Order: sequence, then C-alpha cells, then structure tokens
Amino acid sequence: MFIKEGGLALLVIYSKKGRPKKFLVKIERKKVIHTHKGTIDIGSLIGKDWGMTTETSKGVPVEVHRPTLVDIVEKLGRSTQIIYPKDSGFILLKSGIKPGDRIVEIGTGSGALTLILATFLGPEGKVYSYDIRESSIKVAKQNLNAFQLSNVELKLKDAKEGIEENNLDAVFMDIPDPWELLPMVHRKLKSNGTFVIFVPSCEQISKVVLAARNIGFSLIEIHEILDREFECNERRTRPHPRMIGHTGFIIIGRKIKSSS
Amino acid sequence: MFIKEGGLALLVIYSKKGRPKKFLVKIERKKVIHTHKGTIDIGSLIGKDWGMTTETSKGVPVEVHRPTLVDIVEKLGRSTQIIYPKDSGFILLKSGIKPGDRIVEIGTGSGALTLILATFLGPEGKVYSYDIRESSIKVAKQNLNAFQLSNVELKLKDAKEGIEENNLDAVFMDIPDPWELLPMVHRKLKSNGTFVIFVPSCEQISKVVLAARNIGFSLIEIHEILDREFECNERRTRPHPRMIGHTGFIIIGRKIKSSS
Amino acid sequence: MFIKEGGLALLVIYSKKGRPKKFLVKIERKKVIHTHKGTIDIGSLIGKDWGMTTETSKGVPVEVHRPTLVDIVEKLGRSTQIIYPKDSGFILLKSGIKPGDRIVEIGTGSGALTLILATFLGPEGKVYSYDIRESSIKVAKQNLNAFQLSNVELKLKDAKEGIEENNLDAVFMDIPDPWELLPMVHRKLKSNGTFVIFVPSCEQISKVVLAARNIGFSLIEIHEILDREFECNERRTRPHPRMIGHTGFIIIGRKIKSSS
Amino acid sequence: MFIKEGGLALLVIYSKKGRPKKFLVKIERKKVIHTHKGTIDIGSLIGKDWGMTTETSKGVPVEVHRPTLVDIVEKLGRSTQIIYPKDSGFILLKSGIKPGDRIVEIGTGSGALTLILATFLGPEGKVYSYDIRESSIKVAKQNLNAFQLSNVELKLKDAKEGIEENNLDAVFMDIPDPWELLPMVHRKLKSNGTFVIFVPSCEQISKVVLAARNIGFSLIEIHEILDREFECNERRTRPHPRMIGHTGFIIIGRKIKSSS
Repeated sequence: MFIKEGGLALLVIYSKKGRPKKFLVKIERKKVIHTHKGTIDIGSLIGKDWGMTTETSKGVPVEVHRPTLVDIVEKLGRSTQIIYPKDSGFILLKSGIKPGDRIVEIGTGSGALTLILATFLGPEGKVYSYDIRESSIKVAKQNLNAFQLSNVELKLKDAKEGIEENNLDAVFMDIPDPWELLPMVHRKLKSNGTFVIFVPSCEQISKVVLAARNIGFSLIEIHEILDREFECNERRTRPHPRMIGHTGFIIIGRKIKSSS
Repeated sequence: MFIKEGGLALLVIYSKKGRPKKFLVKIERKKVIHTHKGTIDIGSLIGKDWGMTTETSKGVPVEVHRPTLVDIVEKLGRSTQIIYPKDSGFILLKSGIKPGDRIVEIGTGSGALTLILATFLGPEGKVYSYDIRESSIKVAKQNLNAFQLSNVELKLKDAKEGIEENNLDAVFMDIPDPWELLPMVHRKLKSNGTFVIFVPSCEQISKVVLAARNIGFSLIEIHEILDREFECNERRTRPHPRMIGHTGFIIIGRKIKSSS
Repeated sequence: MFIKEGGLALLVIYSKKGRPKKFLVKIERKKVIHTHKGTIDIGSLIGKDWGMTTETSKGVPVEVHRPTLVDIVEKLGRSTQIIYPKDSGFILLKSGIKPGDRIVEIGTGSGALTLILATFLGPEGKVYSYDIRESSIKVAKQNLNAFQLSNVELKLKDAKEGIEENNLDAVFMDIPDPWELLPMVHRKLKSNGTFVIFVPSCEQISKVVLAARNIGFSLIEIHEILDREFECNERRTRPHPRMIGHTGFIIIGRKIKSSS
Repeated sequence: MFIKEGGLALLVIYSKKGRPKKFLVKIERKKVIHTHKGTIDIGSLIGKDWGMTTETSKGVPVEVHRPTLVDIVEKLGRSTQIIYPKDSGFILLKSGIKPGDRIVEIGTGSGALTLILATFLGPEGKVYSYDIRESSIKVAKQNLNAFQLSNVELKLKDAKEGIEENNLDAVFMDIPDPWELLPMVHRKLKSNGTFVIFVPSCEQISKVVLAARNIGFSLIEIHEILDREFECNERRTRPHPRMIGHTGFIIIGRKIKSSS
C-alpha cells in the first residue's frame, strides 16, 4: 500500500511530553504545510510506504499514518458535534446491520456516522442520508468524496415530509425530535427492521421510548456508553484525569408484528 | 426475507413485568421446544416472515426475531467469557480494519469476536484465528458454521510457536500474556498495521504498553468502555440499578518505521 | 476500648476464597449464634479488646470488629433501601452542616442517614426526622437506640401538613415528590440554609430543579456518585466485574434573599 | 448568624448563561474587591445576614454565602491538588472515625482533608498532621487559622522517621509510597483502628494492598469514586459533557489481632 495523490494522510508529531499532535492532510503534489516544528513537504510522500517516518524542515520526526475511519471522524469534529467511536461502534453492532443492507439516516450532520455505516455496508449496501441543512449536506459530501464511497445518497430534504425508501433494514436518527418520525419509520422498515436513535437528554429518552412502545416496537433498549482512557508510563498506570462526561443516549428497537 | 430451515431464530417471550426472555434456536422441521409458558412448534415457522408473532401451546405470544450478531454473541456466552458489544464495537472501529482486510486473531475463545470481525471484513477479507484449546476451536467452528462464513480459518495451534501469515492489516489478541507475542506481531503486520489487545487487569496494561513502545509501535491508546443501561416507563427514566462493572481494557497501537 | 454488653459487634469469617462474611450482632451475656462454620459464644467476648480474633466451635477464626456507622447502615439494608457511603458521605459534606446544627429530615426510612447525620452533628446538634409510615419510625427507633443518640427526635407525621421547626440549618428529603414541599422548606430554613434531596429518576431531577429555581434557591447542583470497587491479589489488580449501577441523584441548593 | 469581621465569605455573581462565578474573600472593614462586573465593598457586609444579595458598583447582584467546608476546600485547590467532596465524604465515612477520636494524617498538602477531619472530630478530637514540605505546613496553617480549629497540630517532620502518637483511632496517608509506612502505622493504631490511603495509580494499589495483607490488616477494600454532575433547565436534563475522569483510589483496612 503506497501513498497516493488525492488521498488523505494522518501526520503525527510527538511533543516532548510524548503527546501526539495530529494533522489530517490531503496528499497533493505541490503542497507544503507549516507546523510549529517546521514545514512538511507533502508532495514528497507520494509513492512512499504508509507507516514511515519523515522529517520536518527542522529535522523533527513526522510519522505518516494511513488514516482510519475514526481518525477522520475525529477531525470532522471541527465544525459540528462529532460521534465518538465509543458510540458509533456500539450503534453499528447493536443496529444488527450487515454488508449489503439498505438503510436510511435522518440527520446527516458532518457525515461521520454516514461514513462508518457506508463503509461497513459495503458496495452492495446503500445509505440514504437526509438533512434539512444545506451546509450539512455540503460538508458531508466533501467528507464522503475523500473516501470515494459510491453507496451513499445524500438528500437535502426534510424527512418529516416523508422518505421515499421502503423495506429498509434499519433507520438511524440524530435529530432533536425523533419520536415524531417514529410512526413513519415503522412503516418504512421491513419486518424485524431496527431503529437506532441518538439523543442527548433524559427527556428525549422518555419521549422516544414511550412512542416506540406505543407503535409496537419490541426489544427496546437504552444505553449510555462511557469511555475511560488510561495513561501508562514506566512509573504508573492510571485513568486520565479528564474524560468526556456525556455525549448522548443510544436507543434501539425492532419492528414486530403482533399476533392476531 | 423468510425464515429458512437450518438458520437461527431468536424467540422472545415477555414476562408480566415486561422483561424479555430470549431463546436462540436452530430452525428445524420437526422441532418443538419447551418453555415455562408452553411448547413452541419451530417447524411451523419455516416460510413465515421475520418479525412476526406466533403463540405457544398455551396461547402466550412469542416474537420471532432474526438474530443479530450481538444476539448470537450474547448466547455464546454460556460456556465461556463473552465479549460485550460495548467492547467489540469499539475494537472494530479503533482497529481501523475495513472490508477486504486480512487479519489474525490470537485466542479464538468462543469465536464471538471472530464472528464479528469476519462479518465486517466481508467475503474478500480473511480471518486466521489461533487457539491452543481443542474445545475452543470446536465451539467456534459450530458457532461460525451457523453463519456460513467462508472467510475464517480456525487454527488449533500455539501462536507462540509462530504464525504463518505475513503482511497483516491487524492482529487481535485475547490471551493472558500478549506482550510476549508483540515482537512477532510487529514483524507479521504490514507497515502501519494495527494491534488490538484485550486484557482484564491493570498489571497487563503496563506490560503491554511498555513492550509496545519498546518495539516501536505508535499511537498507543488504552481504553475501558462502560455501558450504562437505562430503564424507562410511563413514570420514570433512570439508570439500571445494576451494571457490568468491568470486562477488560482495550489497548491499540500502530506499526511505524522510525526515520533513519 | 473493651467490648461491652448491650452494644453491637461486627463478626467476620473469611471464606476459602478470602471473601469476608459479616454478622452484625448485639452483645448479650448468654447469647450463642449459629453460622455455617460452627457456633460463636457471644457472651465470652465481653471484656475483651476490639480487633481480636476468636474461634467458632469448629475452630474457624472469627474477627471481632467494632462496627462503624457504615457497617451498621449496610446491615440496616435488609428491610428497606439503604443509603450507600458513596452517597451519604457526599451528602454530608455538600450539605454544609457542622457540629451543633439543627436539621430536619423528611423520609426517615430505616434511619440510616439519620444515624450518620446525628453522629456528625454531635450532642449540641439536633435532627428532627419525619416519616408517615409507622413501620419506618419503629425500625429507625430500634436502630438509633443501639447508638444511644440523644439528639434525634423521630416524628410519625406527614411533613406535607407542615413541620414545627424553624430557622433550620438544612433540610434533607428522601420522598417521592420533594418538589411539593420545597416552598415550605424554603420558609423553614434559616437564611443561607441548604436543602439536600435524593431522588432515583431523571423526571424527579427536573421537577426539583425547576421548582427550586423558581422559589429562589441558589447554587443548585445535581450529582450522581458512582463507586467502582477494585479487587487486588498477588497476580492482578482490576475493577470488580459487577457494580451498583444506580442508587439516586443528589440535588443541593441554598436559600438566598434577592436584593431589592 | 451575622457576617463578622475576620471570617470568610463566598460571593457569587451569575453569568448571563446562569453559571455562578465564585469569590472566596476574607471579611475586612476597609476592603474593596474588583471583579469583571464592578467593585464590591466588603466592609459594608459586616453585620448583615448570610444569604443576602448585595450589588457591585455597576448594579450587578452579588450573593453573599457563608462558605461551607467544601466551598473552602474547592478554593484551596489553587496551589495544590485538592481533594474532591466525592472522595473526602467517602473517606470520612469509611474511616469509621467519630467525634472525639484521635487521628494522624501523613501528607498534609493544602490542609483540605485536615480541615474536614478536624471539623467532624470536634473539639474533643485531635488531628496530628505531618508533612515534609515547609510550604505545605505554611499554607495549611493559614487555611486552618481561618477556621479557628484548635484540635489540629501541624508537624513539619518526615513521618518515615517515626510518629510520636500512639493508640490512634485512624491514620490517613496521601503520600507517594504509603506502603513503606504501613508496618509503623500498624503499631501506632489502636486495636481495630483504621488506615485510609489515597493513591493515584494502579501500581500503588497493588503495593498497598499486598503490604497491608501481609502485615495483618483485615477488611481491606479498594474504591474509586466518580462524580457525574448533571445539568437541568426548562428544556432538558442531562449529564455534563465534561467530567473529572480520575482523582485517586481509596484503600481502607482495619487492624486485627490474629488468634493464637
């Protein structure tokens, strides 16, 4: 795997204290970037191997990593609220989706979850992602382009006015009032399809869960995932003094037909 | 999607208090299972739609769900330690693997993580999974067969004596002394490949991290993921009174060549 | 400090795995208790030193500890919901109370928090504790008697009909609908007095906080305290696999007069 | 309770977003303090009632609170690591100490825990607090003076060279290598006395616990306390997005004499 023009690279410079400073850059032939430790000639990386170490103009080592999905999602966070791997990994698994599935996402945001879902659904799968904000769709398009994912369709449209797709394997919602769309989501899901909702507050949990039960979803679960990062050196191992206290609650349910 | 002979189904009966009791069963034409609420004729489900509700011999409703990976992994847990979705989802994302990658797993266990990794790697990808216990390989084979995954090779072999594969995208270890294998893992990984290690104790964190730094891995991170489940009814929303206090720590690092 | 008739002792027998099995017993001259490891002659302990080790009739060692407040509170939990030291310690400190203060508790329960508050207020302080359940008052009376605390007055009375005391330093509430009493509590507190409320659900947080702000309380805070217990032996240190997932939320506020 | 010269006051100004900005000030007759919202005439507060609201020179409301122990401890944190109420409350309760007890603290630090322990031990109790740093003893003296606590004796001395006191009810240690002092602590404690140790790292847990078991302490427990703060307004209730990830581990044990 060689470094190619047009893709992304994650450059890492370590501080004296051993903390990594990360730069996500597009690989372009005539590009030079400026850091606090000297300049880096991006063009010179083309054709080299991922995982090598180069140097800044000041001789400071720069590691060249092929960015993972999580590296990219982390950097998307600049403009909008990002989704953390603690949440997106859990969402991915609990949604029950698998390669080839067709899903709808309501609330594209920066396209971070879109990117993750599309990657794991694979070329046979499909993501239809709705957002009412032109800025979101624009940002998401840029982010998705960098990945050349052909299985995503972004839709600048209010999902409350209806979604076109039917017989879906799963629907993901990250919007302020997801309970209002749950009856429609129920109709659009295939039998035994799943909804996954991400909401920040306790009041929203209650509204989603009571609506979902009322409509006839089953196996409803509510989870909050916490990530404790640890630090370790020769002298000691301990949890980091600071942590993310809260991102959101994940609510899941499956469509079921009652007997009759 | 209709229910077919030979596959698995997740049957759910709700208690009076609204708690789901789950049964993971293989669909067979002449099978009848016995529950505390009456018998269920499994054969009669063949050809029906997933997500329907049938009844026991006593008229109690039984929901028929197509099991997700997580449903199955949860049930694998009977015999051995299982991996929880809070951990496996995070591992999956942070490992940086994508469809088509080739990976090695050391410590197959019940095959729970194997199943998840193989599903997301897709038919173009490959999992080589090592275990020294014949019982593990046997259980894992049964579990994987139920999924008809053709991209997994189980190996009854001590990985300490060497693994055959080279140029790997990632190596996953769930064994008591993973630090002993890290030098070999470093050689077997492709440049910029990733290791993911799961260990239960603080002492193991330290041994893994110091070894990994010494060998030349970069971007080493240590995480502990916690899952708080909530409960919600008409009257109240609150965290469950009981929770899993600890499963293990997840340690990740990436292979890097230093400049020279 | 010698063991005296009439007081309580905490007897501890260790299992083979090293887990302590605890017995809280009243010291009486002619008492013998029966355990799974033989009988213990309680009367023979009188006059001995706390912290000694005696033996059961079968020769199994029995440690004789002078029980702490927390040991006793833990055992009170048999009949009713107990308060954990993670919560009671935090409540004690954040309430701002000090020896000599006069306080009211609404919702005596088993008297566990009453016991803790009364101990720290000292003989110059005073706790007035209200409960509408005769059974609660009876149990609390027994529990408090064992401590010969003379600074507690138990009241079998509905605090909603009014409390007699005025100019209080703090009011503690552990009842289902504490927001209904907040206006009265505000009148009964001295200027700059504190309320501390313990509630299990998110909906109750909201009702308490909005009411408290409306009435004119200041420095309102909401906390949930979690206790992760660790285990450690020669081979490893790690968090316990199980933990208490939730007990309740602690809400605190202080009475303030607005300028005018 | 009127505001008196020489004591401390906690002044609170709310931001437009409703966040309290706190100032801990000594009450002096001719003092004026400068804030971002105008000046406050401190002398004018003397003789007024705690819990009143005054105004800055710019007419911004300023609440005047009588500071609690926790308010003061929070402000002590400026120079050194503070102890949080989540930890100090738990330590206080689990130590089993009660008014009138005699205890030793090794590692005075800023005197934060000293202050809390001394307050609850009351005038009949006694705290002997050791520190090897002159700066610590000096700061602690200042902090304790503000409280006019006569039951604390600060000692500028290395406890490793021995402590003078005997027959202690409890010993508290917040130093880097507490296991080295445990044999001496065992001798200095009265029978059934308690040690409480606060350490930041996992490696220290192991060293303390193994040493304590070896010396013959019983009922050894290890706890990590986490505090999740919530926020609540008209629209929503949720955990704060940020939290303290780690302060330290609390280890407790009780002296016991084995049978012989």
